[in-house]
Parts: sequence; structure tokens; C-alpha cells
Amino acid sequence: MTQTNRQIRLKSRPVGMPSAANFEAVEGPLPAGGDGAVLRRTIYLSLDPYMRGRMSDAESYAQPVAVGDVMCGHTVSHVVESKNPAFKAGDFVTGYDGWQQYAVSSGKDLRVLDPTSAPISTAIGVLGMPGMTAFVGLMDIGQPKPGETVVVSAASGAVGAIVGQLAKIKGCRAVGVAGSPDKCRYVVEELGFDACVNYKTDDLVPALRAACPNGIDVYFENVGGALFAAVLRLLNKGARIPLCGMIADYNATRDPGGPNLRPLLVKRAMIKGFIVSDHPDRAPAFLQECAPLVKDGRLRYREDIVEGLDKAPAALIGLFEGRNFGKMLVRVSPDPTRA
Amino acid sequence: MTQTNRQIRLKSRPVGMPSAANFEAVEGPLPAGGDGAVLRRTIYLSLDPYMRGRMSDAESYAQPVAVGDVMCGHTVSHVVESKNPAFKAGDFVTGYDGWQQYAVSSGKDLRVLDPTSAPISTAIGVLGMPGMTAFVGLMDIGQPKPGETVVVSAASGAVGAIVGQLAKIKGCRAVGVAGSPDKCRYVVEELGFDACVNYKTDDLVPALRAACPNGIDVYFENVGGALFAAVLRLLNKGARIPLCGMIADYNATRDPGGPNLRPLLVKRAMIKGFIVSDHPDRAPAFLQECAPLVKDGRLRYREDIVEGLDKAPAALIGLFEGRNFGKMLVRVSPDPTRA
Repeated sequence: MTQTNRQIRLKSRPVGMPSAANFEAVEGPLPAGGDGAVLRRTIYLSLDPYMRGRMSDAESYAQPVAVGDVMCGHTVSHVVESKNPAFKAGDFVTGYDGWQQYAVSSGKDLRVLDPTSAPISTAIGVLGMPGMTAFVGLMDIGQPKPGETVVVSAASGAVGAIVGQLAKIKGCRAVGVAGSPDKCRYVVEELGFDACVNYKTDDLVPALRAACPNGIDVYFENVGGALFAAVLRLLNKGARIPLCGMIADYNATRDPGGPNLRPLLVKRAMIKGFIVSDHPDRAPAFLQECAPLVKDGRLRYREDIVEGLDKAPAALIGLFEGRNFGKMLVRVSPDPTRA
Repeated sequence: MTQTNRQIRLKSRPVGMPSAANFEAVEGPLPAGGDGAVLRRTIYLSLDPYMRGRMSDAESYAQPVAVGDVMCGHTVSHVVESKNPAFKAGDFVTGYDGWQQYAVSSGKDLRVLDPTSAPISTAIGVLGMPGMTAFVGLMDIGQPKPGETVVVSAASGAVGAIVGQLAKIKGCRAVGVAGSPDKCRYVVEELGFDACVNYKTDDLVPALRAACPNGIDVYFENVGGALFAAVLRLLNKGARIPLCGMIADYNATRDPGGPNLRPLLVKRAMIKGFIVSDHPDRAPAFLQECAPLVKDGRLRYREDIVEGLDKAPAALIGLFEGRNFGKMLVRVSPDPTRA
């Protein structure tokens, strides 16, 4: 076992799109813990759009990563050594260890995974923060009713894919919006959405109108930008818009503006921003509903895995360019559960 | 009694700001009704921002007025003749008779007023549609809690004035935004708001920040435009925005755009459009709460009355220019209850 801990730290705050120069790889000694410490080796690191906010010191809903600190992120790890009786060497755990090969803590921030019930990587994907984001936003704010039309942007992504599949399970028409023919095909053919609009090539309003002949009742907003303006034109009366993310605007260097909101008035529609971490109370309901759906294959997911911690910066940048296809993960060290 | 009925009809649909040329005054015979008909003479006609939407054939929440038809509007009238036992000559009634001196109908759209309980003009003002708009938007969507800060635009207007006073009654800090020193003074000194920002002369963000030292929990939106963007920057976590109107945008000839909505996400805030006519079930609660407040002077109101039906077009245009000061009414014929 290597005796060093490689980390990727925030070197400088990006202006606009992050670049490799904003990150710095650093090697240091293995972290040491006191009594009760749990040392673990990172297997998977999740890369998510919210990380752009943490790289900035603009006001957001969480403290930014300090310049010089390890980048944050959800992880799945293998316990190397434990002085805490709740964990033992060999356990798979999920936590928030960030962009590094090893981490140590008392273990209170860790949850043990059962690799026989679901692949361990799902703990930071379909059965982790992204899946729960889809669940909370769709169920609690979107409140889809059978027969309604649910549109979701970034439909092949970690959150969007779950939103559309849950909408189908709830008896809705599910319409995705994605950024390539492959992604659109995947969303319809593999995930079972009713239709998918390619925002890069389709004329948005007519394409959405064709995909949503009965209008839009729920729009699960992940992207912002021009798509949001197009959706506003097709809302049904009483429409609900869970506002989950606005990835199209995260790298803007000046205020990108937005659409005029008069359609919300005319249609008595509602937009509500939410942050999944506000809703830990919903975790049991989420897992109770979604874990069986994953197990029996009704809730499908796709992972886009890059190999090695050093690929994380480029992979995160790719996320903002829509280059990922599925849940973006970094395999920081080998996954012993996959042959 | 005159034997003609003067009406103001929609002559053409405006492009941008309405002008006198969009209206046409027409004289015709008194309307004749069949059995059970109630003939009444209009005393007060209410002028309201929503009328701009009815002049346009752009999609809105109600059918537009057809070109050549009488302009629509809430009215207080005096019954001249009634073949319906529920009404008698001399009754004061409120209805939706539009821009004309006389109207006739079966009476099912009329409600008899008690001129001893409140001035009859209040039935189309503080105790009518504008007051109920304030009540429903603030209470049901804004849900103000004691100690919170409520900001309302068009604060000296028919709706805004009630919003701020109800907010005070609910134990909130009430901050108005209005368009002149006189209006701001009125809002603070007469209506009891805690502060008022002049959107025409103040630098919006610093002025709002000074007026709202604890941030903004509820923003009752009547205007749209630059004010909304400024408010978004000062929202507190979990803020609620009842979207009641966007008068600043009603006469736009091209899409005026809007602010970027990322603050809604960061602050988990909610915007919800509403139309008071969707909520007739709330009328009893509204009158039960607000009628006594009007009677004992705790809910104050101000009327801006022009004399004579022919002044209605210019007065409506003035509403979009902020020239009114208080609830805009046209006195179409003398009010026998006022000496």
C-alpha cells in the first residue's frame, strides 16, 4: 500500500469556466487519526455540478472550499483500518471525503454499505445524493399526478435520468431534454421516457410543443438558460417547477439574465428552489421507494467513470460542457466488488 | 333620466402603451332586459392593471375583450328598475358591468351592498377584488410570520396598500416601494409601513438593503422589471414571492426578459403566480377579517377618482404610468351616499 495521500486542492478561484490551472495535485503523508479513527481509501469520487459553487466565493447555500483546501465531494471508500467499533477493515462506506486517495475521521460522517444489495457506486449516484435530489424535487415540489407531463432537463444526467423514470412510474408522460442524439436515444430507448428533445439542434419551442402535446405540468429545472424560457411558454395552468440547478449559468461571468416571468402569473405556476441537503428527513422514504426499483431494474442508471484522481479536474470541466454521459464518477482506486 | 347609454368600447388592440385611439365612445339606447331583468346605473367603475391584458389577444388567463365590445370592469351601481325580487330600485349593487352608464342582466352577477356598513366604493376597492387580491396573495402564498420582512411594490396602489397594512397587522416589518416622495410619505405616515423606497430616485439595492436590515422574507410582486431583480439579491432563505402582477412589463412590445433566478435556488425561495378569481372560496375569510379592519380604521385606503366615463381611457393609461395615487376609480354618475 502506498504510503502517500494524493489530493487535489483548489489552487485558485475560477473566473467563468474552471480550468486545470485552478487545481493543484499535492502529495502528503497518510492522514493520522486519534483514538476511534477510521482510515479509508477512496474508491469512487462523485463529480457534481454543485462543485462549481464551492469553487467560488460568491454567496451560495454552503461555504466555499478555501483556496488551498482539498476539493469537496461525495465518496465511496474501503476501510483500511478502524479504531471505531462501528467499522472494520474491509467495510465499504460512503462519506464526503473529497478529492483525495485517503481520508480519516471518527467515522460519524460515514455510512456502511452492503455491496450485495446494490453496487457500491450507487451510494453516490442513483441511491445517493443525485437520486435523492430527483426524488425530493419531483415528489415534494413537482407533485406529479397520473396523466400529467413532466419535462426534465439534463435528462441523461445523474438527476434527470431518475426524475424521468420516477415520473413514468407515477403514470406521467416523461419528456427529456439532452444534448446529443446518443443521449436522446438512451433516454427514450433505455430509460423509457416518452420523448427527448435535443437542445443543441432542435428548435426548442416547436420541439417541446411536439413532445408535449398536452402542455407541461412539471418542469424539473437543472439547466437554466434558453430552455427555461422555452418551457415557460408551454406551461399548463398550475404548473410546478422544482428548481434544482442552473448549470448553464454557473460559469457566467456576468449576469446571464433570465426569462420574463409573466407566464407564471398567467398560468398560476410555481417555481421553488430546493437543496437536497435540507431534507435529510426524506432519506428513509427515498431509499424505501427507490432501492427496490434499482434492485429489480425498474430504475436504471448509467455511470460515466474516469480512471484516476488526476482526471477529476478535466472531468468536472466536461460536466459543464455536457461531455459526460451519465453519472460522472472518478475511480480513485480499484473497486474490489467489480471483477 | 337620460334615455341613452354611453359606453366605451375597445376600438383597436394597442401595441405597447394603450392610447386614446384604442377606445371609442358610443351612445345607444338603454339596454332592455326580459323577465326578471335588473336595470342599473353605474356609479363607480374600477380601473385595474389587468385590463391591459383584456385589451390584447395575447394568451392570458381570461378571454380578451373583443374589438367593438364594451370594455370590462368591476362596478358599483344603483338599481333603477328590477323585475327580480332579489333586487329593488334604489339598491346599491356591485357587479362586472364594464365601461358604460347602464347595464341590465338577470342579476345573478350582482351583490347587494349595505351602504351603512362601508362606503359603497369599497366594494370594488379595499373590500373588493383589489383587497381580496392582497389578502389571498399575502396570506395564502406569502404566509407572513411575525418578525419577518414583507416588501410590496406599487405600495400606495389598491393592492399594495392593503398588503403592507395586513403585514403590519400580522406582526411583520412592512416595506413599500412606490414612485414618488408623496406616495412614499403616504405609505409610511398614513398607512404605517416601516419604510418606503422610491424606485424612481433611489438606488434600489442599497435602498432596499437599508430598508430591510434583516433581508426579505416575502416579496409581494406587482410590478416586475428592475425592482424584482433587486429584491432577488436580498431574499432570505425560504422566501416566498406571491406573483400578483407585472405592470412594468404589460406594455412591452418585445420580451422584456427578467432576472436570473439563481437566487431562488440558493435561497430555496418560491415564486407562485396567482389570480384572485381562482379563489372565490376565500371571499368569506377575506371579508370576515378585513371588513372590521376597514370599519374601525385599521385598514386604510385612498381613492383616486376621476369624474365621468369619458375620462376612463386617460385614467387607465395613467395607471400604467404610475400617475394614480390610490385606488383608481371613475365616478360615472353621482354617488347618492356621498353628500
